[in-house]
Amino acid sequence: MSFIRNCWYVAGWDDEVKEEGFLARTIINVPLALWRDSIGRVVAFDDRCCHRGARLSLGRREGDCVRCGYHGLKFSADGVCVEIPQQERIPPKFKVRTFPVVERHRWIWVWMGDPELADETLISDTHYLDDPEWASIGGHIHYDVNYLLVCDNLLDLSHIPFLHPTTLGGSPDYASVLPTVERLDRGVRLTKWVFNTQPPEYSKAYGAFENKLADRWMIYDFIAPGILLMDSGMVPAGLGEKARTTGVRENALEFRGRQALTPETDTSTHYLFAHPHNFMIDQPEVTRKITENLRIAFEEDREMITAQQANLCLDPNFQMLPMAADLALTQFRRVIQDLLDAESVVPASGAESKQSQLFLQRDARSEFSACKK
Amino acid sequence: MSFIRNCWYVAGWDDEVKEEGFLARTIINVPLALWRDSIGRVVAFDDRCCHRGARLSLGRREGDCVRCGYHGLKFSADGVCVEIPQQERIPPKFKVRTFPVVERHRWIWVWMGDPELADETLISDTHYLDDPEWASIGGHIHYDVNYLLVCDNLLDLSHIPFLHPTTLGGSPDYASVLPTVERLDRGVRLTKWVFNTQPPEYSKAYGAFENKLADRWMIYDFIAPGILLMDSGMVPAGLGEKARTTGVRENALEFRGRQALTPETDTSTHYLFAHPHNFMIDQPEVTRKITENLRIAFEEDREMITAQQANLCLDPNFQMLPMAADLALTQFRRVIQDLLDAESVVPASGAESKQSQLFLQRDARSEFSACKK
Amino acid sequence: MSFIRNCWYVAGWDDEVKEEGFLARTIINVPLALWRDSIGRVVAFDDRCCHRGARLSLGRREGDCVRCGYHGLKFSADGVCVEIPQQERIPPKFKVRTFPVVERHRWIWVWMGDPELADETLISDTHYLDDPEWASIGGHIHYDVNYLLVCDNLLDLSHIPFLHPTTLGGSPDYASVLPTVERLDRGVRLTKWVFNTQPPEYSKAYGAFENKLADRWMIYDFIAPGILLMDSGMVPAGLGEKARTTGVRENALEFRGRQALTPETDTSTHYLFAHPHNFMIDQPEVTRKITENLRIAFEEDREMITAQQANLCLDPNFQMLPMAADLALTQFRRVIQDLLDAESVVPASGAESKQSQLFLQRDARSEFSACKK
Repeated sequence: MSFIRNCWYVAGWDDEVKEEGFLARTIINVPLALWRDSIGRVVAFDDRCCHRGARLSLGRREGDCVRCGYHGLKFSADGVCVEIPQQERIPPKFKVRTFPVVERHRWIWVWMGDPELADETLISDTHYLDDPEWASIGGHIHYDVNYLLVCDNLLDLSHIPFLHPTTLGGSPDYASVLPTVERLDRGVRLTKWVFNTQPPEYSKAYGAFENKLADRWMIYDFIAPGILLMDSGMVPAGLGEKARTTGVRENALEFRGRQALTPETDTSTHYLFAHPHNFMIDQPEVTRKITENLRIAFEEDREMITAQQANLCLDPNFQMLPMAADLALTQFRRVIQDLLDAESVVPASGAESKQSQLFLQRDARSEFSACKK
Repeated sequence: MSFIRNCWYVAGWDDEVKEEGFLARTIINVPLALWRDSIGRVVAFDDRCCHRGARLSLGRREGDCVRCGYHGLKFSADGVCVEIPQQERIPPKFKVRTFPVVERHRWIWVWMGDPELADETLISDTHYLDDPEWASIGGHIHYDVNYLLVCDNLLDLSHIPFLHPTTLGGSPDYASVLPTVERLDRGVRLTKWVFNTQPPEYSKAYGAFENKLADRWMIYDFIAPGILLMDSGMVPAGLGEKARTTGVRENALEFRGRQALTPETDTSTHYLFAHPHNFMIDQPEVTRKITENLRIAFEEDREMITAQQANLCLDPNFQMLPMAADLALTQFRRVIQDLLDAESVVPASGAESKQSQLFLQRDARSEFSACKK
Repeated sequence: MSFIRNCWYVAGWDDEVKEEGFLARTIINVPLALWRDSIGRVVAFDDRCCHRGARLSLGRREGDCVRCGYHGLKFSADGVCVEIPQQERIPPKFKVRTFPVVERHRWIWVWMGDPELADETLISDTHYLDDPEWASIGGHIHYDVNYLLVCDNLLDLSHIPFLHPTTLGGSPDYASVLPTVERLDRGVRLTKWVFNTQPPEYSKAYGAFENKLADRWMIYDFIAPGILLMDSGMVPAGLGEKARTTGVRENALEFRGRQALTPETDTSTHYLFAHPHNFMIDQPEVTRKITENLRIAFEEDREMITAQQANLCLDPNFQMLPMAADLALTQFRRVIQDLLDAESVVPASGAESKQSQLFLQRDARSEFSACKK
């Protein structure tokens, strides 16, 4: 099976699902019709009428029901067909699949697998997205690449000085410090402190670090299927060790980046992100610039990864070569493979994607012994 | 085999095949070059030179012959090669396939199968298209969907109040009346009378039905491969029963819709249509409006069916659920399957389309027992 | 295997590979990054970082090295990795493939196979491209067709009066004279003299042939994978026999066309061309017109061949019919097949293209007995 089903995917920002109408969004090849009932609760329908497969998101809302726009079948919020205009009897099979939904801290989470197994404790903490002590603007972009290649990107940030020298950059020496990597239950944790280093280009606009060195940290969890929970920042050089050992971060610039990769199809991905900061939070222009900067950097990623994917597709026999910096992404792919294995007694359908297998197997095959030094 | 070969397909409107040049049109995956000889007769060539496969429609006409634009081979109207500029001898195999053609009442019909079996009595009556007692404007649109999904649409008009409320609509109660369905030799007949009902939106512009109820009928044959022969209309409420039993239709608005679905490829379809009416035929604006209204409605269909096809292609294992309103379309798919079976001793080529199989098998598999109540 | 590997392909014009940056060009499905080192020598890299497949042409040059733009790996001109910023040890497998390159007379030649076998004596003579006695302008167009269909086009120039009547044309009688064909070691040679014939349309602009007949010749080698070396021209009628037997060409218009077809993918081709002439070489307008004329003619070819390919792809069972004019192209396809057979002990990868097989087998299957009259 290509994608993990029993996990929470971020379907979108809360304001993408409006009071009226539908948000049509495809997740792991399943088209969803997302809508809000009369008390504002988000409902996720399979965007496919059980009759002949019409898209329900092309229909209309009728109170807390959905009317298919093709032949007029009406479904209640639990997916049960409550009216077939052309006949009195409603056969029991007439229902559309619904998916567990949780709306929390600005993100809409959808459980794509067995509803019985939906476990809200697996939802990551994104409270910084609507915490008044933190400021951020939500972003949403779309990549025409497999989500694993974007995971790889986020799991090896040693690429930053090379791919993002003018946006997220910093000094090249930054690249030589690799994070420590711990395996978590459903993800990995990366930790990295760099002392007496050039602050990244963007930070120079924020006073305290102009012409000064910084002690920087970057501590993040990366959780299946592709949720990034970042704690990053910098203190003036010299204050880093105290910050690291005691947690007291003086004169710090701090961020709590939250990013979600949601596979749309085997070769496309929704990318939601925000970069909450706790400084100058009353200056919207600062928040705007931070977001804009990130968006530019993600365009740099997109160009690189799209070309990378083209290369991988041109030659399915290409063997990647492992290196030390791949440690986290190798671990994470094992997390994904383990979760897939746990689900795959027998594949649910013959629609198993060869392309997704392709992307995953690149590393499943590799030994990555070089990373274990 | 994906498509019926031994039947007449509508290749186009008469004025699409001009005195000069070619009409290049693909039918059931076969590219055709259609042209008129010196006495105006339409000729249908395989649009593929027998030499190396060049498109003959890129060549030129020379009297009643066609000159290939690549290497100059010349073919007479019966497809026989009459000149190879580079050599004297013309091997007997040098000929292009030709197809039986009948031009009648504004439509060009082409027989795509064995010419020996071409039977003109199978051509449907479309005389309303050029009968001076009736007025209509010919339309032609193109769908990027398999033709069977458009057939389905036309065989279950209970979708009209839901998908076309402001164009073809009428009151929702209209949906609750299903037509009776009879199987014909190569198609199905649907008959439906609805009394004391709201006339459709468009009819209100035509005087007699403003603020009044109507008795409406809709009687149509739907013939393989996808020819719709419609007799529809309305009389003021109260006159319907007489009209139904005696055929006398007083103060009626009547139509004789003629529509043809011609598969282009497995996932695209030419759609020709006209909607002859017998009232206000000296008012071109009325005819124009009727046609325009239909065109808008067909755009509504196109959006719905295109999304439906996307859904079907995303999940080949999706099982449609049958309901009472599917009776006619189920019958019609059996007509198609029977005709295909009759032709398929051995498939003519390995080029049999898996996608077309897919669309057909959706219902071949289904039992539709729910429809037999 | 779909493409010959052990041969020289023309990657581009010399000025396409600039002092700075990269020329990204795909040849036989292999993306290349071409660049010049500090002494101007052209280097051809596999455009794929050995680490995770990033496109090196998206990276940057650092002196005579290339820095990958993703994770910063640095490679010297021989493809060896000389720096991994994230670690000290450089495993010996870390290198990118390089390809032998020869820059000669304005063309960049790349050997796509075993470097040990790269033999410069196999590079065709294109000195007319930078010989001061000859004038030409280099052209470069891109076809979305398999290169063999363009080879076919160039190996049967009897199509000229039909497809290019106003550009390259000439009188239709020209078509009735077929060239003699000789098989060469890695190609074919075509020789054709036509006496007392209309000069082609374009030549009328060049004085000597206005209102006069000409004796014309066209002698060319067509060498694998798709290199055309043309000697063509005309003398006033009556001087042809002397020209043919003694080589003395009086009052001649002469050309030394040089064209290269470089397969990009199975269904796309780079087409480089120039048409050096030895008359009026000090009149840039004449050279410009000759080039422009050729470019218009190649657009005529492109339209025809693109439609031809569409036809071939629609029906893989279509059998071409051989005729006398196919002699050279049949011979040439045998050249290609022989070279492929010589290489194919075991296919190097499973990525063997079915589509290219398709195009080649069309003739490998055919017997072409009709051509042997």
